[in-house]
Amino acid sequence: MFDFTGTYTDQYQLTMAQVYFQKGHRDQRAVFDYFFRKLPFGGGYAVFAGLEDLLDVLETLCFDAEDLDFLRAQGLDPEFLGYLGSFRFKGRVRSSREGDLIFPTRPVLQVEGNIIETQIVETILLNILNFQTLIATKASRMRKAARDRGLVDFGLRRAHGPGGYYASRAAFVGGFDATSNVRAGRDYGIPVSGTMAHSFIESYDEELAAFRDFAQGRPDNCVLLVDTYDTLHSGVPNAITVAKEMEKRGHRLLGIRLDSGDLAWLARECRRMLDTEGLGYVQIAASNQLDEYVIRSLIEQGSPIDLFGVGTSLVTGQPDAALDGVYKLVYAGDRPRIKLSETSAKITIPGTKQVHRISDHGGLWAGADVVALSGEHNIRTMYHPFDSSKSMSVDKCPKEPLMEIVMENGARTSSPRPLAEIAVYCRERLSLLPPEFRRFENPHVYKVGLSDRLNRERNALIEMHRKDGS
Amino acid sequence: MFDFTGTYTDQYQLTMAQVYFQKGHRDQRAVFDYFFRKLPFGGGYAVFAGLEDLLDVLETLCFDAEDLDFLRAQGLDPEFLGYLGSFRFKGRVRSSREGDLIFPTRPVLQVEGNIIETQIVETILLNILNFQTLIATKASRMRKAARDRGLVDFGLRRAHGPGGYYASRAAFVGGFDATSNVRAGRDYGIPVSGTMAHSFIESYDEELAAFRDFAQGRPDNCVLLVDTYDTLHSGVPNAITVAKEMEKRGHRLLGIRLDSGDLAWLARECRRMLDTEGLGYVQIAASNQLDEYVIRSLIEQGSPIDLFGVGTSLVTGQPDAALDGVYKLVYAGDRPRIKLSETSAKITIPGTKQVHRISDHGGLWAGADVVALSGEHNIRTMYHPFDSSKSMSVDKCPKEPLMEIVMENGARTSSPRPLAEIAVYCRERLSLLPPEFRRFENPHVYKVGLSDRLNRERNALIEMHRKDGS
Repeated sequence: MFDFTGTYTDQYQLTMAQVYFQKGHRDQRAVFDYFFRKLPFGGGYAVFAGLEDLLDVLETLCFDAEDLDFLRAQGLDPEFLGYLGSFRFKGRVRSSREGDLIFPTRPVLQVEGNIIETQIVETILLNILNFQTLIATKASRMRKAARDRGLVDFGLRRAHGPGGYYASRAAFVGGFDATSNVRAGRDYGIPVSGTMAHSFIESYDEELAAFRDFAQGRPDNCVLLVDTYDTLHSGVPNAITVAKEMEKRGHRLLGIRLDSGDLAWLARECRRMLDTEGLGYVQIAASNQLDEYVIRSLIEQGSPIDLFGVGTSLVTGQPDAALDGVYKLVYAGDRPRIKLSETSAKITIPGTKQVHRISDHGGLWAGADVVALSGEHNIRTMYHPFDSSKSMSVDKCPKEPLMEIVMENGARTSSPRPLAEIAVYCRERLSLLPPEFRRFENPHVYKVGLSDRLNRERNALIEMHRKDGS
Repeated sequence: MFDFTGTYTDQYQLTMAQVYFQKGHRDQRAVFDYFFRKLPFGGGYAVFAGLEDLLDVLETLCFDAEDLDFLRAQGLDPEFLGYLGSFRFKGRVRSSREGDLIFPTRPVLQVEGNIIETQIVETILLNILNFQTLIATKASRMRKAARDRGLVDFGLRRAHGPGGYYASRAAFVGGFDATSNVRAGRDYGIPVSGTMAHSFIESYDEELAAFRDFAQGRPDNCVLLVDTYDTLHSGVPNAITVAKEMEKRGHRLLGIRLDSGDLAWLARECRRMLDTEGLGYVQIAASNQLDEYVIRSLIEQGSPIDLFGVGTSLVTGQPDAALDGVYKLVYAGDRPRIKLSETSAKITIPGTKQVHRISDHGGLWAGADVVALSGEHNIRTMYHPFDSSKSMSVDKCPKEPLMEIVMENGARTSSPRPLAEIAVYCRERLSLLPPEFRRFENPHVYKVGLSDRLNRERNALIEMHRKDGS
């Protein structure tokens, strides 16, 4: 929906591309890995999100007239500008399925194509996948905390500009039920939801008159905000009056919403007042600075809240605010490539690869992904990616390959996956993840290792570079 | 640039609007305040940003055919849909100048119009202003830390989707020199800048060959990334070789970039090596997880870094990730309105207002903004907004009114202000702010108070509501 054009990229992608073009490297084959190094929120997993949006962009990305005019004014080579004028991404994408759970170090997605196209799409790929993965992961944590209660995204007003649009999508992938963001509802088919604001009540002389008008306008879907003046002495009594008037007209008040004060205590008091009046069916919604920890605490206190509205911490992914996903060259021309680093955790994994998820014989995941070479079979041992002296046998375990080709010659290999299907897939995958990886406090570490062959080839490449350097 | 349509809003805005429409309140006048409660980053001020983008949106906002189809499917009243079909924002906006420094509690901007239009624009207004103000403030802190060194935004890959586009703009308002984000450069006229990636070097068999090709392609603007294999034993020696080759061709290497390791130590070593070879003109750029504190520390260590490339912490506004700006009804129909709260800091300031900045007689700001009624003169005393027993005299002080009408009947009252002018204005305003409000650690608190008349009227309104409630 955002009009992503070719200049939605970092300047150096174009600078490098021009050098490749001028030096005759334009057709050099390249493979890049997308992966991240650190799980967000101190958690034990991340939810992969944003793939379908990325594929939409890759299918349509081009440099428009304004782009080309600007780049001309920036002094780019006219021949190279001609090349950009007809630029289309024509590469291949191998990817994990959107909604799957992903772990650090292993490739989540690989892009293969000529060195120019694979480089130009780097920035937009990271921009889309890093953000949606962050938010889907946050949403999944809130879903865990909220158990079976309703979860609605209220975050657009605190989101990072149009980032909020993608946040609503990612929240749905991670387990939210609905969004207040109408545009995201329109374009992604997410159920939209909303109540009323304090301003509505303040615009009337009396709270009761405001409630009455609202209830008449929303006979079947009326949620009244009860904390504008005084929750227990004004808001709830007025809501009860209106609920009884609605009953006489053959309707039912759907709910009340609390947006300030001690939500645990207020929800209990409200529940008691409603129940005393025979309004056990009226639901209680709560909002105001919620995150997964506050939601968990409210649930643990037995608070009778039926629905949580979550804003800032969801759509901005507080406190992390970013996933550290990177895009690294792993193959160029005719051979695998590696980036060395004094920090061994920053040394990349060269080559075209597949990732296999190990299960135990009961069907649950065994807590390990093995990265192997593409097409490699008979994976028997897995090695620690940064300490080859550590290994474990994975010989007899069931293994599931995680990456598949989703784009070939710049076109999707199958039709876009509906968002609701992605959300269901995420839920299914979470049900296979043992609980020790899901807990908030010191979750168990999901292992990622290298196959025997990949480990050997990588070590040989490191050795070769170290010799060259010495 | 994002195609903001009418449905880029929270569902409840439309729900409430429909009730107003059906109940014949559609022409009720309303005034909303935009303000925030808490300064981001523990700092002493915020930089107001996003106004010009907001005005662009307000001038063009409408419900398109897809919006109307979606809302029809959602069951909205056909008559109200007809109203939305011809909806245009026709209100008035009074605002602080973009780039000015702003403080909590006081109105930054006021929107006046009919109750429906003022409500529908709430979400988009908060979405734009909260985010850009957050990022401009963060950028301003980095500018302070970096003193006169260069600052370039490298953040697009870690930004929240297209939020990154607006982040680049806000960073420039707050004091950045350039961005890597080509699209933001194209649309906002921000200087674009960039170097090279590790992948460029890895795609060659030899680092030196990669440097040579790059230098030939960028004879006047070549920055070489020196940490792909080994900064001091490979990257810098190769860069020196290339710099000397460039000299023979009559060119000069612009700089080298460090992206890992101990930047302070490496920069010193690199500087020494370059200087020894007579390459004192070659600049040193540094990047990798920088924020205002790391930049300050590098500068304090005397690190010879000429330019900082900043990504994640800038464009996501870490660690806060959001400004808590709100939009509150302060006037409806024929009288001021107030939102009460058990938390007195959450009680709003009713009515149409002006804000006056107090200066000392030397011209520097005196650390106080007075909120007064619109058109009020002879402001002599200022009262604490949440504790009327506290007051101070502002009788003889020079006062500058801060808000002006920027939109009337839905149209700008003057042409859009160029971004470079806004950035200069921000710099000028910062020069008027005494240093105790700029420091990072426990900055002095800028006072915001109410004029005598406003204080009395507000207290009377609070009293009236409390009597009604009792």
